[in-house]
Amino acid sequence: MADAAALETIRFFRQSPAIDDKSKQPNPAGAQKSYDPVTIADRNAEQAIRKVAANRFPEHGVFGEEFGIHNPDATMRWVVDPIDGTAAYVLGWPMWGTLIGLTEKGSPVLGLMDQPFTHERFWSTADVAMMRRHNEHEMQLKTRACSSLSQASLTTTHPDYFADPEKAAAFQRVKSAVQTTRYGGDCYAYAMLAAGTVDLVVECDLNAYDIAALIPIVEKSGGVITTWTGRPATEGGDIVAAGDHRIHAAALETLNAS
Amino acid sequence: MADAAALETIRFFRQSPAIDDKSKQPNPAGAQKSYDPVTIADRNAEQAIRKVAANRFPEHGVFGEEFGIHNPDATMRWVVDPIDGTAAYVLGWPMWGTLIGLTEKGSPVLGLMDQPFTHERFWSTADVAMMRRHNEHEMQLKTRACSSLSQASLTTTHPDYFADPEKAAAFQRVKSAVQTTRYGGDCYAYAMLAAGTVDLVVECDLNAYDIAALIPIVEKSGGVITTWTGRPATEGGDIVAAGDHRIHAAALETLNAS
Repeated sequence: MADAAALETIRFFRQSPAIDDKSKQPNPAGAQKSYDPVTIADRNAEQAIRKVAANRFPEHGVFGEEFGIHNPDATMRWVVDPIDGTAAYVLGWPMWGTLIGLTEKGSPVLGLMDQPFTHERFWSTADVAMMRRHNEHEMQLKTRACSSLSQASLTTTHPDYFADPEKAAAFQRVKSAVQTTRYGGDCYAYAMLAAGTVDLVVECDLNAYDIAALIPIVEKSGGVITTWTGRPATEGGDIVAAGDHRIHAAALETLNAS
Repeated sequence: MADAAALETIRFFRQSPAIDDKSKQPNPAGAQKSYDPVTIADRNAEQAIRKVAANRFPEHGVFGEEFGIHNPDATMRWVVDPIDGTAAYVLGWPMWGTLIGLTEKGSPVLGLMDQPFTHERFWSTADVAMMRRHNEHEMQLKTRACSSLSQASLTTTHPDYFADPEKAAAFQRVKSAVQTTRYGGDCYAYAMLAAGTVDLVVECDLNAYDIAALIPIVEKSGGVITTWTGRPATEGGDIVAAGDHRIHAAALETLNAS
């Protein structure tokens, strides 16, 4: 599925694909972005993934960002974001990825994040999380230890995505507590958290397809990922991921300390 | 020089190099960041560049971020930032680059930005700006047309770098006028402006080594780059780069409209 999607995403990358603005459409997650680009690359890549799924796993369901739910009652469901980070994609930046998750009765069982421009692929197996670059040897992903927020690096995709003032204030409390904050991550930030170079990711108003594929990658590499209230991240919403359970706990406390 | 630097930057990338925080040291450009990482990769890469310069161009001067000015009275000077975007580098993100510029009596004559992880190199010749990836064919860089700020994509490295409230307000005026804003660019944003996928970059308090190498790349690809007051960007300071002269003029006007 990722290989099929990559043909489409790479074909249009930096080729000035026509951009539609989805912010004019209602967003099921609630928060409305002021600009939410989508391109023919998003749509073609999702269709390519759906074609593979239909051929190989005709009894499975598919939930994708661009074309909704197919076979909603299936036990096994592929949860797909063909380009997570379209805003970065249309700028020609490599900070985007193709997300492909598999859920069983709603619980994530496998996840994959593919970055075909840098030739990096991150995925979970039943036991561990792995990455490889080009066709070089595979490497096991392992989050790093970080005992306190004051030593942590925090990332989020864009500060303006915290449109709700209370959520913005909660994010600011965490930002004030950490060593450094960087914007512009999208799914790449979670992959780097799994790889042990980022400590904390805090985001809000995500959809299920933004996060389902990343949950097993974060968890099998030793990280913790939940909503801001400590519930499963599977359905999206407000998400906090940490490489070390101690800063996950500290971030939850700080987010809810109003 | 870029090849020599790449050996050092790639060797330590994602290998958890020890990080020193330069924010405790005085910054000649004025604005002080709260966290300003530097690694052995920065220092080794600059030494590697200086070694090549000393061997090949012993009469030239060198001005680098980490080791200051060598041969200050030379007509020709190499202006070097071994890792522009160290904050991204230490997170394992590919949004950094090695900057190597050549100035003659203070005026930029050649510039190069190298991203050895994505295998991309952007550089100017006497007439044009070029890029290549891996060892594939070279491609001429050309900025894209953009007639008004309302259609423009704006990028800057980090909103918190606008530490001066007046500069922060000036940036916000531009941000309010454009279609979309993205953070996290460093030198990669200027390369994408030259490549025609970004319209506008606005930054403040840059050093000469942050920008000297990028000026010929932006100008030879059809862009305009100056300070916020329309003066040469060579010495750094507050910088605005645009792919189209019309939005450069509009951005200058907006920045100075207080």
